[in-house]
Amino acid sequence: MNPETERRLSAAASRTDLALARLLPAAEGPEARLAEAMRYAVLGPGKRLRPFLVFEAGGLLGVGPERLDRAACALECIHAYSLVHDDLPCMDDDDLRRGRPTVHRAFDEATAVLAGDALQALAFEILAGPETHPDGRVRADLVVALARASGARGMCGGQMIDLSGVGEDLGAVARMQRLKTGALISAAFELPLALAHPGERERHALLAFAHDLGLAYQIVDDLLDLEGEAAVVGKATGKDAARGKVNFVTLLGADDARARLELVASQARAQLDPLGNRAGGLLACLDFVLDRRS
Amino acid sequence: MNPETERRLSAAASRTDLALARLLPAAEGPEARLAEAMRYAVLGPGKRLRPFLVFEAGGLLGVGPERLDRAACALECIHAYSLVHDDLPCMDDDDLRRGRPTVHRAFDEATAVLAGDALQALAFEILAGPETHPDGRVRADLVVALARASGARGMCGGQMIDLSGVGEDLGAVARMQRLKTGALISAAFELPLALAHPGERERHALLAFAHDLGLAYQIVDDLLDLEGEAAVVGKATGKDAARGKVNFVTLLGADDARARLELVASQARAQLDPLGNRAGGLLACLDFVLDRRS
Repeated sequence: MNPETERRLSAAASRTDLALARLLPAAEGPEARLAEAMRYAVLGPGKRLRPFLVFEAGGLLGVGPERLDRAACALECIHAYSLVHDDLPCMDDDDLRRGRPTVHRAFDEATAVLAGDALQALAFEILAGPETHPDGRVRADLVVALARASGARGMCGGQMIDLSGVGEDLGAVARMQRLKTGALISAAFELPLALAHPGERERHALLAFAHDLGLAYQIVDDLLDLEGEAAVVGKATGKDAARGKVNFVTLLGADDARARLELVASQARAQLDPLGNRAGGLLACLDFVLDRRS
Repeated sequence: MNPETERRLSAAASRTDLALARLLPAAEGPEARLAEAMRYAVLGPGKRLRPFLVFEAGGLLGVGPERLDRAACALECIHAYSLVHDDLPCMDDDDLRRGRPTVHRAFDEATAVLAGDALQALAFEILAGPETHPDGRVRADLVVALARASGARGMCGGQMIDLSGVGEDLGAVARMQRLKTGALISAAFELPLALAHPGERERHALLAFAHDLGLAYQIVDDLLDLEGEAAVVGKATGKDAARGKVNFVTLLGADDARARLELVASQARAQLDPLGNRAGGLLACLDFVLDRRS
């Protein structure tokens, strides 16, 4: 990875962790175990890709850092809760996440369910709080955007399609991806857009870039599932093939998937043209997504 | 039950079901199963106590019916999701709810986890939507109120205490109740209060009543768990004692619990004195809570 990208990503992660540590409940009272599990789930060694995207897109649009911090934390809480629930025995049944025991392994299943539930509530509490933006309508817009991205027609819907299976249908895999991982990556752009209310040209460019970035992210994920080493990826690999699950790589083969990834990446870069040299940070985000090894 | 109370409760339930059926996602597309599970979880034969409370408190404060409908539906979505997750094998492991198979029995565990998650997102999407109130600040306030009531310092926190066990400590049982069931019952008053912004006197009277009503509700629940018949209650009874769980009745004994219930009920009635004869509907709510057999 480009050292400058690495520096920015690492700075974004520290910034997010600091803000999250303040916003997460303290482990106090007889319900302390719940706060412990929430903190364990969120404050682990994550890449903080979605906050990174919020900061870069929001910075480009001129949104103040405190507002972006809260949007980034809310989005990361939703992402973290989805991982906790996704790892449960009745879902993907994973013991390892980012190189550490998953929440239901470190605590127990019931605590993992509750910690995920409470993280979702916290995400909306953060967005709707008066510190996020002085205009209540903006705060309400943020809530609607994140609720849609994470709900039945977003992330949860995509997970349902994944669980139900999609057959050998590339279109269905693409729809599943768009909902399951694409919706939250797009939310990383929709939240700063709701905070900034820029013109249609910028809005369109950013959302089109978000769409392609999400697709690139998923293809890389599927390639890592096939080719990555578990020790580097930080979780079990080869899972999709072992479970007979269909994804971009099992369907297209690794070579064609890599060719498609190239195509999507160059399309993503082109989407940013209208933003001129303000787009440097987002191009670095794309490079990070393309280069990641875990 | 008083026939007039019965009529009002039944009207509130029909009104809620109609509004929920419109607000829940349609079972369409490859993720249709998720919407089916959400509809199954919410549109069953529930009592709709919380919506009933929202309608009565909001009517008393002069809030328009469409706004109350949305607040009531959001609250019912949160309540329904909590039941779906609470019934999971890793939590209470219940096969029956309101006389029907629980969601993870009618569908499967993974679908139940996702349906609960998507119902929570829907609740906040409903509250924050522009149709709920023209003033964005009011909508954001509603989101904060419901997120707090249902999160780590509310319902989820109470469930955590319940799972962890409270020892033989009446104070701890009371705190658990206040979070686990009390917070959402109080939210049924906080949402109309956020919509109406009345004076401090009304606000105080309603929240004090909500507090006592929630406590009364829980004592009745614990009495039903001991004495109710499973066929009438619609779920297994005697569970707390069988699991060695402590509640108001196992701790105080049925007679003392009933005496305490009387005391709390008369205190609740007194809280409504400042509201004069506008409080009739809420007194009926209290009677319903005291008289319920399931």
